[in-house]
Amino acid sequence: MRLPPDARRRVRIERITPEIDAGRWPAKRILGDPFRVEVDLVCDGHESVAGVLLYRPTGTTAWDEVRLEPLVNDRWHGTFELSQLGWWQYTVEAWTDEFATWRKLLDKKLEARQDVSLELQVGSEIVAQAARRASAQAGPELERVARILRSTRTARDTKIDAATDERLRELMAAYPDRSRSTWHDVVLEVRVDRPKARFSSWYELFPRSTTGSGNHGTFRDVESVLPYVASMGFDVVYFPPIHPIGTSHRKGRNNALVAEDGDPGSPWAIGDKTGGHKAVHPELGTLVDFRRLVAKAKDYGLEVALDAAFQTSPDHPYVTAHPEWFKKRPDGTIQYAENPPKKYEDIYPFDFDSRDWRGLWRELHSIFLFWIEQGVRLFRVDNPHTKPLRFWEWCIRDIQTRHPDVVFLAEAFTRPKLMYALAKAGFSQSYTYFTWRNTSRELTEYLQELTETDVGEFFRPNLWPNTPDILPEHLQFGGRAAFIARFVLAATLSSSYGIYGPAFELMAHVARPGSEEYLDNEKYEIKRWNLEDPNSLRPIITRVNRARRECAALQGNVNLRFHKTDNDQLLCFSKQTLDGQDSVIVVVNLDFYHRQSGWVELDLDALGMDSQETFQIHDLIAEARYLWRGPRNYVELEPQLVPAHVFQVRRFVQREQDFDYYA
Amino acid sequence: MRLPPDARRRVRIERITPEIDAGRWPAKRILGDPFRVEVDLVCDGHESVAGVLLYRPTGTTAWDEVRLEPLVNDRWHGTFELSQLGWWQYTVEAWTDEFATWRKLLDKKLEARQDVSLELQVGSEIVAQAARRASAQAGPELERVARILRSTRTARDTKIDAATDERLRELMAAYPDRSRSTWHDVVLEVRVDRPKARFSSWYELFPRSTTGSGNHGTFRDVESVLPYVASMGFDVVYFPPIHPIGTSHRKGRNNALVAEDGDPGSPWAIGDKTGGHKAVHPELGTLVDFRRLVAKAKDYGLEVALDAAFQTSPDHPYVTAHPEWFKKRPDGTIQYAENPPKKYEDIYPFDFDSRDWRGLWRELHSIFLFWIEQGVRLFRVDNPHTKPLRFWEWCIRDIQTRHPDVVFLAEAFTRPKLMYALAKAGFSQSYTYFTWRNTSRELTEYLQELTETDVGEFFRPNLWPNTPDILPEHLQFGGRAAFIARFVLAATLSSSYGIYGPAFELMAHVARPGSEEYLDNEKYEIKRWNLEDPNSLRPIITRVNRARRECAALQGNVNLRFHKTDNDQLLCFSKQTLDGQDSVIVVVNLDFYHRQSGWVELDLDALGMDSQETFQIHDLIAEARYLWRGPRNYVELEPQLVPAHVFQVRRFVQREQDFDYYA
Repeated sequence: MRLPPDARRRVRIERITPEIDAGRWPAKRILGDPFRVEVDLVCDGHESVAGVLLYRPTGTTAWDEVRLEPLVNDRWHGTFELSQLGWWQYTVEAWTDEFATWRKLLDKKLEARQDVSLELQVGSEIVAQAARRASAQAGPELERVARILRSTRTARDTKIDAATDERLRELMAAYPDRSRSTWHDVVLEVRVDRPKARFSSWYELFPRSTTGSGNHGTFRDVESVLPYVASMGFDVVYFPPIHPIGTSHRKGRNNALVAEDGDPGSPWAIGDKTGGHKAVHPELGTLVDFRRLVAKAKDYGLEVALDAAFQTSPDHPYVTAHPEWFKKRPDGTIQYAENPPKKYEDIYPFDFDSRDWRGLWRELHSIFLFWIEQGVRLFRVDNPHTKPLRFWEWCIRDIQTRHPDVVFLAEAFTRPKLMYALAKAGFSQSYTYFTWRNTSRELTEYLQELTETDVGEFFRPNLWPNTPDILPEHLQFGGRAAFIARFVLAATLSSSYGIYGPAFELMAHVARPGSEEYLDNEKYEIKRWNLEDPNSLRPIITRVNRARRECAALQGNVNLRFHKTDNDQLLCFSKQTLDGQDSVIVVVNLDFYHRQSGWVELDLDALGMDSQETFQIHDLIAEARYLWRGPRNYVELEPQLVPAHVFQVRRFVQREQDFDYYA
Repeated sequence: MRLPPDARRRVRIERITPEIDAGRWPAKRILGDPFRVEVDLVCDGHESVAGVLLYRPTGTTAWDEVRLEPLVNDRWHGTFELSQLGWWQYTVEAWTDEFATWRKLLDKKLEARQDVSLELQVGSEIVAQAARRASAQAGPELERVARILRSTRTARDTKIDAATDERLRELMAAYPDRSRSTWHDVVLEVRVDRPKARFSSWYELFPRSTTGSGNHGTFRDVESVLPYVASMGFDVVYFPPIHPIGTSHRKGRNNALVAEDGDPGSPWAIGDKTGGHKAVHPELGTLVDFRRLVAKAKDYGLEVALDAAFQTSPDHPYVTAHPEWFKKRPDGTIQYAENPPKKYEDIYPFDFDSRDWRGLWRELHSIFLFWIEQGVRLFRVDNPHTKPLRFWEWCIRDIQTRHPDVVFLAEAFTRPKLMYALAKAGFSQSYTYFTWRNTSRELTEYLQELTETDVGEFFRPNLWPNTPDILPEHLQFGGRAAFIARFVLAATLSSSYGIYGPAFELMAHVARPGSEEYLDNEKYEIKRWNLEDPNSLRPIITRVNRARRECAALQGNVNLRFHKTDNDQLLCFSKQTLDGQDSVIVVVNLDFYHRQSGWVELDLDALGMDSQETFQIHDLIAEARYLWRGPRNYVELEPQLVPAHVFQVRRFVQREQDFDYYA
């Protein structure tokens, strides 16, 4: 009968969190985050157990460790700081703690006033063994205690004092016997990004529409609108593809099958004879202009994000240089994109089943490297769900290994499991279904799924009230109130959000009838936007973005909590920093047509507040201040004014000295 | 740049259920069970996917497979039958289904009335490739279809008929291209036990108390009470240890430190000079007598369960033959069991940290084999939580490999995680906290944890209203109503339960003051039980056990559901077989002193019933029948009569012919 090799390892390590799909995928965190790990340590009998959380930057060999501390019900926790970008590995080691077990028994016997002379001798041996494991300094100290415990000439009370000394407990914990410890089967990983991966405010604009005159804009023209974008408080300016646009099968205005003379074509029909994914559209300028724009943006606190749309126009140089990267139809033509009855003759998808898939993967990977060379560190990836998950996993990992500060946003609107699979594969942020979640219940359930489940470990939502592809119905008909409400929801429900502007702040709301597509869509034409429109939402956007910068609570999603209201049209939620120092309460009127009022029932426990506590709430939009007390508080929101409150909570804290002051 | 070896495998396999701790532990099922596996298959793009559930008895090499069928949201399921005892392995393989993807596109184009001539050519090639993979019979059939699809002389409609033929779909599904399939990383396991592991009714009795006269009973005397036990409907008769009892430090009546002359000692103080764990107490008889008893019991439909208590009296032969198996104290004495202030000088625990732990493990393992030789297949293991988990995992696996029909019941009352860890390690059934769960809420939450979570996959509860160690407070003071209510709860909440008799049915209820210990505990003395006592609960026990045999719903726990009542003292729950053919509704009055009445609000959806449906409920205890309709129904229970209903549901089923009849 074969005995198991791990027969004598007694502690079981179970239910580590975070652990995504049994450790197949890394959790995600931000530089400087304290990383908290929890785990069940289960051991037979009445043994005391001890353990450590082991951690190291991936690629290094030596483990650092921090002692696990007990919670309740055999659950333990440990925390370390993620002090550098990249990936970190972590796992858990645990063992039975002979000294602690012995101390427990000794204490019980002392309490029961039983004879402990034999126990003291047993303890002497345990301490002597630790002395042999200990450092040159601690060893003799432990040996001295061991001698006291076994000495026949020392008084019982002296021995007991020595045995129960706190210093001894510390020394014994520092030199445990780990020869029969258990390691968790799996080394887990956490991905550490720079802060922008979690907290970012995106502004999407078409560079060619920046002249205001209807002429094709250039990167220089984009420079001129940077102050406008920055003044609203955005920190990312994202451009649809800036590459040459194909002419074959170019789409006209409103997606017309045939383009008119002068129609600029869709920026997503990438490539013409002048170049493809590594070239700049000649009418926008040059690579030099682009790099200058990136630098200028930086001066305004804006980071440029590019669109990575891995598909080509029929005129892309790849089509002739690498015909094997595309699917051929039996008649010898290349298969264009289609979703019957729709045909996209101006777009060729890549064939990832190509014989030369290796060449294709390497080339696509090199596109990121190329733009990284130009100073770009943010990529919005177009339709990543139509490319193999394994490709993204490989590509993102490699890029981020070379450039740990690169952030990828997945623009996938697809099946839920695939959305999550992309995030697991490495995307730093993800588009969401927010755009189509309208009611209190829909928003609550969806955001709870994103933030209160495992999903929160790997999927960072980026909420968009609109995109060039989506003008949702509520914006078509809900008027200014809808725009403001949806904006506040996006900017406060999630620490990352974005708008497609200036269409958004100028409240463009006319759709092709019966659709969620913009009429006269900017994808197919150059727009003239009046940035000085007095009706623009610019002021309120500016105020909300300022609130986001000022309130640390709005810069993460972990403590998002929804609170009951007695009126279904009023959505109330709060956010809080992990340390509890900053709390924000948001109330939004989801009825864009009528005033709604009601009582919110705050879950004060979740906010770490007392049911008797009076606190000030400061509306960061309207700049009003109110005093609230207890859980039930009245709210009234008039959509024709501002349909939302964003309250920062200011608590009156009782200090030891009994002075009241604002925290 | 290294490309990943699995680059071209596109389907992700996620969230397989059942999967316990990432596959570390087997799920548990019963012989003949259909084994249903669910899994997420996630693939990029718009590819159709297909997959199989692979399975085989552990130890064999060839996989059997069954095709996975889609549910919703990328979830799939497959089922196979567990047709033999032992362990089965299972895993999932999945791939992109080129033909199904192509059919989807073809259908869309046909619907959009687009030209499909090129698609038919593409399809021809896909079918021709399958022909090369297919059997000698199917190959030519597929080749013929391929020819039709590419023929230039065949009419379009003929081709389309050929392409969309159901037979073709079946053939193509039968010969998929699995060259780029994905396998789940882990081969999972399920343990298959005989039915008794799930459905069992235990009766614990002390063999020595079977004379009725106060004289020491023998196995022959036990034979004489078998008809009594069997007549109540039990199917397991379980004995505390039947081995020689030590005399050193023997405990007297009521756990007295010093035994009087004639005190029989605790059966758990195992071993004297005549033998230990492989010997029979001389006063009970011989091994021959024991084997005869096992056979007799079988004649009565009873299976004998033995107690495996791995500890010794100071007189056990092991103590001299293997002193290294025990912990020595510094004064040279052997460490007895203790939990200060309590001392158990009559009991020596084994030292699993012994130098000769290998010898100890092997010897304990051989004890099971010894009793298996004598015909025993059920073991109740005493305090398994004080022995290493790894020991049980090894020991149970080995024993069940040799004897697949052996069932182990874990008698552990310890921390929740350790209870579960023992079940994962291999115990077939487990004692529970039921004994201390009293209120509606306590019972509901606990049973939901046991049956509605992952726990149900590996932990089979065995509910005991009393044991020789536990006379819970409600039985001390609740009178007959408490005994009946707790009995009905145990016997219906779980498919396995047990009582310590005749103490239970004779309602022994006097405890040592302030404790949950029986006064004059049978552990330390021979009892005289009057089995003919007219107040015995025997009749109602008999009725409830008959209901358990007649109602398949009571023979499993998967579909346990709790239903709301408007009276907290009324607990209502239902059970149903997986096929929905048998349903039982139980209502128990948890107030043992007063009549309680109220309305139950049945979750008819959970029972697969219509809110307008009239159905008969047949009380299997009182033999009364009622008609109920809809979810709200009135119940009144008088504790002085019978404090519980056990209703079998009889539905009036509308047949096609419009005749009403009883299902």
